[in-house]
Amino acid sequence: MTLAITNEEAVNLLSMKDCLAALEVAYKELAEGVAVNRPRSDIHTNTPTPQQTFRFKSMEGVVPGLGITALRVNSDIVSWPIVDGKQRQIKVMAGPGETQCAFIMLFKNDTGELLAIIHDSYVQRMRVGAANGLAVKYLARQDAQTIGLVGSGWQAGAQLIAMCAVRPIRRVNVYSHNPEHRENFAREMTETLGIEVHAVNSGAEAMDGADIMAAATSSMEPVLFGEWLRPGVHVSGIKRFEIDNEVFKRADLTVVHVKEGKGPNYASANAPMEDIPYMKGDRFDLQGMQYMPELAEVISGKHPGRSSMDQITFFMNNIGIGIQFAAAALIVYQLAMECGIGREIPSDIFLQTWHS
Amino acid sequence: MTLAITNEEAVNLLSMKDCLAALEVAYKELAEGVAVNRPRSDIHTNTPTPQQTFRFKSMEGVVPGLGITALRVNSDIVSWPIVDGKQRQIKVMAGPGETQCAFIMLFKNDTGELLAIIHDSYVQRMRVGAANGLAVKYLARQDAQTIGLVGSGWQAGAQLIAMCAVRPIRRVNVYSHNPEHRENFAREMTETLGIEVHAVNSGAEAMDGADIMAAATSSMEPVLFGEWLRPGVHVSGIKRFEIDNEVFKRADLTVVHVKEGKGPNYASANAPMEDIPYMKGDRFDLQGMQYMPELAEVISGKHPGRSSMDQITFFMNNIGIGIQFAAAALIVYQLAMECGIGREIPSDIFLQTWHS
Repeated sequence: MTLAITNEEAVNLLSMKDCLAALEVAYKELAEGVAVNRPRSDIHTNTPTPQQTFRFKSMEGVVPGLGITALRVNSDIVSWPIVDGKQRQIKVMAGPGETQCAFIMLFKNDTGELLAIIHDSYVQRMRVGAANGLAVKYLARQDAQTIGLVGSGWQAGAQLIAMCAVRPIRRVNVYSHNPEHRENFAREMTETLGIEVHAVNSGAEAMDGADIMAAATSSMEPVLFGEWLRPGVHVSGIKRFEIDNEVFKRADLTVVHVKEGKGPNYASANAPMEDIPYMKGDRFDLQGMQYMPELAEVISGKHPGRSSMDQITFFMNNIGIGIQFAAAALIVYQLAMECGIGREIPSDIFLQTWHS
Repeated sequence: MTLAITNEEAVNLLSMKDCLAALEVAYKELAEGVAVNRPRSDIHTNTPTPQQTFRFKSMEGVVPGLGITALRVNSDIVSWPIVDGKQRQIKVMAGPGETQCAFIMLFKNDTGELLAIIHDSYVQRMRVGAANGLAVKYLARQDAQTIGLVGSGWQAGAQLIAMCAVRPIRRVNVYSHNPEHRENFAREMTETLGIEVHAVNSGAEAMDGADIMAAATSSMEPVLFGEWLRPGVHVSGIKRFEIDNEVFKRADLTVVHVKEGKGPNYASANAPMEDIPYMKGDRFDLQGMQYMPELAEVISGKHPGRSSMDQITFFMNNIGIGIQFAAAALIVYQLAMECGIGREIPSDIFLQTWHS
């Protein structure tokens, strides 16, 4: 039996606390070389619609200690419009009924069978939040109480939830370019977190006095600047583009998510690589990263992490990895089985009696 | 709606003639750089059973002219026993009810949606057969009438069917180490092809007088030797190991399937790469291949192919590629839709209204 689990169902199954704990296990295994990733690959081709690119994205991760492997697939239509003078990445809901094709497949290592197919979105935001949350746990000052945040989308929300789970956060100042969005976000997050979340009028204002400075936007240009840094702060990034180069220069300790970085990019002759804006960000993967510790090394204790109260630490969540999806999806699957949630689909769709 | 199609159903949908034609289109697009592959990657980890390795294998291919993309997944349990003194690769049917988890997912490029999930095995053997069949079409002498074959498994059968579709073959001599297997194979293929298929007692005997020399076994050691070659012959290989190095030396024109070769191999610390026998074969990918034309170049006319009656041509089908699965799976899907074959599964399993 293969279980299909939607985003709406996954919300009630995977808590941030469980997600943080599951990822911590997976990272420790990764640090030992036991858990392994097949880095994300992207294939690009054009679509009949101008300014829209079909991007087929996949990654895999095996976590032997948990006995599972995940394959994550994003079959996306993407465009990169200029909004308010800044380039953004938009995923077009081009599927039937304004949908997007994105899912995680969870496999069992000792039989090879497919245990579950889980919508991507909720697990995706939780695993991004949890990675940056674990970085806060291992790198931010123990007494960190305030967060400055740029961005008010769903990734931004998951970032706050994860950080509040690992530090006694009392106040968040949030800025995003759309006043309505930031006001709504502040209201909602105040309710969710039970702490003060304030909408402010600029990124600089958001970061004023913050112990943790975080960016979580869809911007492809810097929104978090090095001039805002002060001693003892922890900086949290989830997209290379959002972070000003000055942050890389001024941080005393920069930790990357994974040095292997992004896997290969492929492009059809009809969608030349040089026309795809986010390829720019990939260049970061090639510069200086070999000298930075990885998050898994810090979590496993192979790297000591923060060494003084005044140190500026910076976690750059440069790219997602398959083992995050494996660890988080396993919890979703196990709880769904326990609670009788999800739809059963016939396993023989994926299992053959013939040899390949 | 997503359509699930089994091997048993696919057999009645995809003919070798259609498969050859579909792959020819895909290869022409590949030669133009319009069709693109994400080369096969393998991740290895151990299983609780000694001598059994979990190998998660995937590859992708986009064929923009056909508007589709395929992802092929093999979630295999593999072992490499010594049989009759030779090392073989065995795929263990470790899934529920002695099954193997292996399937192809077919996506639509303009919406991103998942059109179909198709069992792997039948399409797999057809696309391997068709690739070597197209090589025969473009490289073997027009007057080739006899085939010498080592191997009597299901890949061997598909090889014969494909070759007989492109040349006026009158006789096949087949050898495999198991007398019963080769006798049964000869009887069955005589019936299928309506030509003389004879079981013989050695590889050398099979190749005696053959215009086309083919290997299709599960052996990881040479079974087709350079000393057997004679002027004008075409050699057909589907596994690097099976082909003696002397064949590479003596062939006047060696064409490889794809120069990009195999994608990366990953292995857990619990399953060291050096313990995995077939990694040996991968070394071939690194030596001399850059000087060989690819099958797509020959099919598209970018390379002239055979230049004389006496030339020894050799096609090494070094690795599978995603676009083969895309082209073949599209036919299976289209005919299944036309004929009302296959099971409908709800698309919303794969489509989300939330953003990722």
